[in-house]
Amino acid sequence: MDYEGRLARLQHDLVSAGLDALLVSHLPNIRYLCGFTGSAAALLVSKQKAVFFTDGRYKQQAHEEVQGARIVVDRKPPISAAADWLNRNRKKLTVKGLGFDSQHLTVAEHGDLAEMLRPNVSLRKAPAVIERARLVKDGDEIGSLRAAIRLGESLFSVAVRAIRPGVAETQVAAEMEYAARRAGAEGMSFETIIASGLRSALPHGRASSAPIPSEGFVVCDFGIILAGYCSDMTRTVHVGEPSEPARRMYDAVREAQEAALNAVRPGVPVGKIDSVARHVLRRQKFGRYFTHSTGHGVGLEIHEMPRIAARQREPLLPGMIITIEPGVYIPNSGGVRIEDMVLVTNTGCEVLTQTSKELLLI
Amino acid sequence: MDYEGRLARLQHDLVSAGLDALLVSHLPNIRYLCGFTGSAAALLVSKQKAVFFTDGRYKQQAHEEVQGARIVVDRKPPISAAADWLNRNRKKLTVKGLGFDSQHLTVAEHGDLAEMLRPNVSLRKAPAVIERARLVKDGDEIGSLRAAIRLGESLFSVAVRAIRPGVAETQVAAEMEYAARRAGAEGMSFETIIASGLRSALPHGRASSAPIPSEGFVVCDFGIILAGYCSDMTRTVHVGEPSEPARRMYDAVREAQEAALNAVRPGVPVGKIDSVARHVLRRQKFGRYFTHSTGHGVGLEIHEMPRIAARQREPLLPGMIITIEPGVYIPNSGGVRIEDMVLVTNTGCEVLTQTSKELLLI
Repeated sequence: MDYEGRLARLQHDLVSAGLDALLVSHLPNIRYLCGFTGSAAALLVSKQKAVFFTDGRYKQQAHEEVQGARIVVDRKPPISAAADWLNRNRKKLTVKGLGFDSQHLTVAEHGDLAEMLRPNVSLRKAPAVIERARLVKDGDEIGSLRAAIRLGESLFSVAVRAIRPGVAETQVAAEMEYAARRAGAEGMSFETIIASGLRSALPHGRASSAPIPSEGFVVCDFGIILAGYCSDMTRTVHVGEPSEPARRMYDAVREAQEAALNAVRPGVPVGKIDSVARHVLRRQKFGRYFTHSTGHGVGLEIHEMPRIAARQREPLLPGMIITIEPGVYIPNSGGVRIEDMVLVTNTGCEVLTQTSKELLLI
Repeated sequence: MDYEGRLARLQHDLVSAGLDALLVSHLPNIRYLCGFTGSAAALLVSKQKAVFFTDGRYKQQAHEEVQGARIVVDRKPPISAAADWLNRNRKKLTVKGLGFDSQHLTVAEHGDLAEMLRPNVSLRKAPAVIERARLVKDGDEIGSLRAAIRLGESLFSVAVRAIRPGVAETQVAAEMEYAARRAGAEGMSFETIIASGLRSALPHGRASSAPIPSEGFVVCDFGIILAGYCSDMTRTVHVGEPSEPARRMYDAVREAQEAALNAVRPGVPVGKIDSVARHVLRRQKFGRYFTHSTGHGVGLEIHEMPRIAARQREPLLPGMIITIEPGVYIPNSGGVRIEDMVLVTNTGCEVLTQTSKELLLI
């Protein structure tokens, strides 16, 4: 990964944002900038240098992983360690305006920080410069995401083999997660959703101890983490022969998903993608059952910018990797969702998830 | 679970804290108070009533799970929905001082909230009343934690069967996690640590693709989530015949762990437990290699209050459930950690983890 280039671009963005330095406290941002994968860290980036803070548990790991930053190991929580370091090194490093990440720093952390810093350093809400940099994936990241998606996709056939009437939803999830781990995944990118029968009407129906009924939809929404990068996909299968209304519902979601995919190209505001999907479902009288947004960015985090939702104006850019996942959920009946991950290209998009979207009957 | 009693006690605590209402935004606190298990929620608790907010994805689930609170489903993020509701219902509910959770609300969320609320409502940092209530587990919670620990413990024998020279650490983790899922766990309470050979010197050595070497310690630190409650335990095994120094190291950690367990009783400040463990390791010249604190509370979250660390004055109380987990980590050599979960009783403690602490050779 190009940590050096990322840090250099951030330092350039600091100048544009009128900040002397930025205190990075959100772990995925720290990983993005210097490669550290542990659970306790802060990164102080000034125009000239970068200093990384962690605690004693991560001393060895920090020296193995962190690139492009000086490493400071301290007993204090990393944010306090950074404030201490700034106070001690104020002659080497003139910082008057210190940016912080208001989306992630808690009110308590902010209060502690303000109290610790010398009075000549003022805290300023920084714009989301790192999140904005992460909007567009570089070549290494696209490679990592492709690998994660490939592994993630292989779990669908595991699910299809496991889904049988009477089998607990958690059992299906167990088989998928076991296969993921054996294939080298660090873990799942979110709690595996296996929502069968009436539970398929729950958009977020995590696998439960309920047995799969002898008839109805099974929504399978799952993803893995591989080398830090997340995959995310959904396929909906049907146990038994679907009724005519069930088929209509599936076809409507599939049509909405295809229409949204076809609308993806650079320059299009993301809200337009959402409205394309919503329009198809409305026309088929399913509009009120599509109760969530159409998608989101994916990368080091399972939910990243942009949010593909109504009225969002962020324009699509080549290199963005997003999900397209409309769904229909009819209470006390059932639900369908179909989700792909796609890469925005110079002319449109490449659908990264290759699994068939034909309705599979079990 | 006694949601009604918990809400009533919180309402009583609000009066003592001089607050008209509290906006609860931390999901484990919301689950504790009303039973909701989804990923988007806010709970507004006044002296008279409780109102629960979520988005469209969780409508059905909220109606199935939430107890003791009115349910409002809104398109907006739950915190904004709560602010809106407060503004609209200001005649029914007089709220001048609205408490918020400064440990979890981000600076950005706080800013949005302050902007949305009518000027006659002022935001106030609330004391950690819910976290303090959660310090002491009630009977239902102790039962849930016992069940989680029992399931979690069963994974150690799975690990012992899987640990063989040449097997990848992730493969060991995969077997454990598969067994956990099959037994009904919702997932792991943290990323499984399988740290073998030189990697055992990493206090947080998540299972990696590295093969287990033919000789050395393997630190196994793992936990599961069952019905929302977490388990946490560590055992360290040795592959091959341990050297004399390795045995000494193991025995020192075991002695420190036993000494700390023996010191647990109501009224003792938690910092004392930490110093008891540290004292044993110092006497045996391992003091500088014990680089983390001695333990933490466990419940709905894997890390809860109290923190069993130097200079912490919180007194132990009957009903607290904490970990006792000293360790020694010698860079470029190896490490040992032994961790139990214990329930503080009226006279001392009950060690909930029953797995043997004899050094197991593989």
